[in-house]
Amino acid sequence: MSELMSELLQRVDAKGVATLTLSRGSSYNSLSIALMETLISELDLIDNDMSVRTVVIKGAGKGFCAGHDLKEMLDSGEESFYSCTFNTCSKMMQRIVSLSVPVIAQVHGVATAAGCQLVASCDLAYAAESARFGTPGVNIGLFCSTPMVALSRAVSQKHSMELLLTGRLISAARAEQMGLINQVVPDDELDLRVTDIAILVASKSRKALSIGKTAFYLQREQPLKEAYETCSQVMTENIMTEDAIEGIDAFITKRTPIWKHR
Amino acid sequence: MSELMSELLQRVDAKGVATLTLSRGSSYNSLSIALMETLISELDLIDNDMSVRTVVIKGAGKGFCAGHDLKEMLDSGEESFYSCTFNTCSKMMQRIVSLSVPVIAQVHGVATAAGCQLVASCDLAYAAESARFGTPGVNIGLFCSTPMVALSRAVSQKHSMELLLTGRLISAARAEQMGLINQVVPDDELDLRVTDIAILVASKSRKALSIGKTAFYLQREQPLKEAYETCSQVMTENIMTEDAIEGIDAFITKRTPIWKHR
Amino acid sequence: MSELMSELLQRVDAKGVATLTLSRGSSYNSLSIALMETLISELDLIDNDMSVRTVVIKGAGKGFCAGHDLKEMLDSGEESFYSCTFNTCSKMMQRIVSLSVPVIAQVHGVATAAGCQLVASCDLAYAAESARFGTPGVNIGLFCSTPMVALSRAVSQKHSMELLLTGRLISAARAEQMGLINQVVPDDELDLRVTDIAILVASKSRKALSIGKTAFYLQREQPLKEAYETCSQVMTENIMTEDAIEGIDAFITKRTPIWKHR
Repeated sequence: MSELMSELLQRVDAKGVATLTLSRGSSYNSLSIALMETLISELDLIDNDMSVRTVVIKGAGKGFCAGHDLKEMLDSGEESFYSCTFNTCSKMMQRIVSLSVPVIAQVHGVATAAGCQLVASCDLAYAAESARFGTPGVNIGLFCSTPMVALSRAVSQKHSMELLLTGRLISAARAEQMGLINQVVPDDELDLRVTDIAILVASKSRKALSIGKTAFYLQREQPLKEAYETCSQVMTENIMTEDAIEGIDAFITKRTPIWKHR
Repeated sequence: MSELMSELLQRVDAKGVATLTLSRGSSYNSLSIALMETLISELDLIDNDMSVRTVVIKGAGKGFCAGHDLKEMLDSGEESFYSCTFNTCSKMMQRIVSLSVPVIAQVHGVATAAGCQLVASCDLAYAAESARFGTPGVNIGLFCSTPMVALSRAVSQKHSMELLLTGRLISAARAEQMGLINQVVPDDELDLRVTDIAILVASKSRKALSIGKTAFYLQREQPLKEAYETCSQVMTENIMTEDAIEGIDAFITKRTPIWKHR
Repeated sequence: MSELMSELLQRVDAKGVATLTLSRGSSYNSLSIALMETLISELDLIDNDMSVRTVVIKGAGKGFCAGHDLKEMLDSGEESFYSCTFNTCSKMMQRIVSLSVPVIAQVHGVATAAGCQLVASCDLAYAAESARFGTPGVNIGLFCSTPMVALSRAVSQKHSMELLLTGRLISAARAEQMGLINQVVPDDELDLRVTDIAILVASKSRKALSIGKTAFYLQREQPLKEAYETCSQVMTENIMTEDAIEGIDAFITKRTPIWKHR
């Protein structure tokens, strides 16, 4: 178990789950460049940390994440700073997608703009009943164009546009209906329910999770025929790993598998 | 405010919203070539009309739109006429997608075949409880192949196929469940509710809406990495526009922004 | 009407519907190579059998299909055998997609791993209330990578990942909510309801179904502009077929069309 305590991001590991808490609670965990770079660095570490099989991202304080740090951006006023912000953000979101283990968003309070994008970018997402989601950039003349990259790959066209064009926040129930999150849970059960799911996912073979997640995002951008070629090959390689041999034997002999990587 | 009154299409502008009414009510607003060409011309005008920030499309008479004008097509019987019909229709649907401002479908009665495609092609769609949707071409031996281009990009595969293969009409409630429309509303509130949404969208910066809508459809056809490159660049350009600078300042100083373009 | 009776797969034809029953009920219709090859061969025959306009796939015994035959695979232990299994499976799933007539999955009991993939690969799917769906490969260290090719094209990203990462089974109601199936029906009405839908689809022109299904999967992988070019051309060809001429005339003269191909 490794732990990182910083002013920006906290990490606690338990039972194969690394929980990362965005810790700029006073500004709704707005994504300053420093916070995004810290998160990327931590994900890089986790990628090579065989003890971690699942990541949970949540926010400290009143909400999950309210997007970028507008004040930091305004104070700069430099094109190079804007560009750096959006590039770093895009890099961070793609780092979640390319991470070898699954990432779960645990959402309370607001998840707006790049905060909503963060939810859309995670592999799974669970939210408290009182949580709210939105891409309100259009309200300030700054359309949520980078958030929509993740959003439009997570929910349908009409639903994406509803968030993007109206700038309104939606309820967690509506977010579940759209498929932006997997499930709404009562506020006081959020922590427990996400922990349960995270521990469940972390009980799997790290090797299998890694093979599967990587193949998922690769095949999704391929035509059907090519996707099948990719994944038939992946399955053949997967079934010859030690963990699959162990898993299948455990299944047939009705016992709990003991993974090599945990 | 500009107004066009024709036999085929009526336009009324108010509060930044251009409302286009398909006016072939006696034939369920079937899409004759003349009507489609009139609609394309009007959209071309709107694209350059800085006073318009949102378009609403609705139908006169008993329904929204029942697709192509079968009688017109049969009377011709010419391959060149068929070809012209489908090409003009495809051009019209893509003109809605490429338009620089959002388009909202306001649906009552039936929206079938190319009429259902029109709903699928708009950025947002709202329907009366009694509205019905379908792609019944298969019932007359003419599969709704052009409608399915828009339909299959708006709803899931199984839902698209349900409409296309059975030829049955579905309720507005089912259309909402599928994500073909954003919301069902009581019949007698349809006008009011769509007006509210249209005015809300039209209260945004035209520049921001235009940047965002254009980027939305561009990035959606790109792989993830390329989409992020596109949109990071778009965000950087957007944040340096006058409207974004005004919007962010208004947000921070807690006042209503005054857009340059309205 | 043609009938095939084999140990692995049974076929019964009625009213233009070919019903294929996976018949390895003692092993939850697990997809041995022999069964998959038999299914491919039968689909090849159906593709050229003008009397068939719709296919229904269901399972004998306690469930629909529980995926591959793990025992067969373990007994082999050969890379070439694994590879052959996944390649044959991928070929079978794509044969369903490329078949010129629609395929409907009728699901009872479990549809797991490649069995869930089979549901996702069919054009339409209906399930009994008590049916369960899942991709539990991750539980045995073998991520359901080929199943996810079909799954991720049928349902949204978060829903796909929920099935793939947790390995848990979901209810038929949840599968309907996700769009993996078209509708849940009471257990004792499943047979009747699927038969009704199948006969409805089989009442259409085979030519129109074939043109439409082929174009559907082709255009879905094309950019919007190219998809419209493809389908405008397809519509023009379709409207000049004998069945469309008959169908449109029947529609205008308010009579039942008589298709050439049935």
